[in-house]
Amino acid sequence: MTISMYQASVPVFQRLLSNRDHLPDKATADAAKRKIDPQVFLQARLAPDMFHLIRQVQIACDHAKGAPSRLAGVEVPKYADEEASFPQLQERIAKTQAYLATFKPAQIDGSEARDISLMAGPRELKFNGLDYLLGFALPNFFFHFTTAYAILRHNGVDLGKRDYISGRSA
Amino acid sequence: MTISMYQASVPVFQRLLSNRDHLPDKATADAAKRKIDPQVFLQARLAPDMFHLIRQVQIACDHAKGAPSRLAGVEVPKYADEEASFPQLQERIAKTQAYLATFKPAQIDGSEARDISLMAGPRELKFNGLDYLLGFALPNFFFHFTTAYAILRHNGVDLGKRDYISGRSA
Repeated sequence: MTISMYQASVPVFQRLLSNRDHLPDKATADAAKRKIDPQVFLQARLAPDMFHLIRQVQIACDHAKGAPSRLAGVEVPKYADEEASFPQLQERIAKTQAYLATFKPAQIDGSEARDISLMAGPRELKFNGLDYLLGFALPNFFFHFTTAYAILRHNGVDLGKRDYISGRSA
Repeated sequence: MTISMYQASVPVFQRLLSNRDHLPDKATADAAKRKIDPQVFLQARLAPDMFHLIRQVQIACDHAKGAPSRLAGVEVPKYADEEASFPQLQERIAKTQAYLATFKPAQIDGSEARDISLMAGPRELKFNGLDYLLGFALPNFFFHFTTAYAILRHNGVDLGKRDYISGRSA
């Protein structure tokens, strides 16, 4: 028995994005309650040379839309990176979710040996589909997802680990 | 064509743990250079109700040893959680790596439908093997791994994203 590249990609992104879905709402409510300008959270960073919250969410979404696109061999849709508020970040997550839902397993299954190349700044990265998904796209997705969560927690927003990983269980 | 549960688990943990391998050394060197007691980093947290660095690393290792054990249906080895220094954290990572290396694909392949249950505090979590791996063990592993990295970055340790995800590429 085996699993498919679709199973190891699209539903993993979908599940985590849907768990994260409510974070913008929670952050907005917390800002209102504590009388904090939401921009304080949106522009917050864990270190001066790390990205702020908005960029972390944008990049997480980029990996979620990039991975199935590249595995399926279709063009990665470009998003404008103009989000400046929590509702706009929520829209980006929703747009990413809607895009993920368009993929059929047959488009992605069998892509484990596909040659994937992408530019990371000036560097060309080359992978096969399996290493791209499990060694690059998913780790990067989780990295930026977790960092966004950590930025909110560091700023005192009342979130729990359950806001990162829902139970899906008894 | 498909992929196997072994491919989606053991090498993913191995790769990320080996990328992280040198972080204790870098943190130790940075502490020496800036004349900071390493305990400052080891006890650092991003929020008062989040775990400190030592615990983040312990838990990341726990997911890395727990996942293949549970998928293979063997007992999860218990580690004592007594690390109190960077060299000891490095030993825990090395011990986890050595344990991962003992698994043969045949022990884990075919485990996608296996019933997995584990206790998370007072709650019993139930999954099939696939959901356990991709919806719980890997996201948790990446969560604690990333948070450990973020704690060091937040404390000014000179790390780059390459210290999280090595290129493995051109």
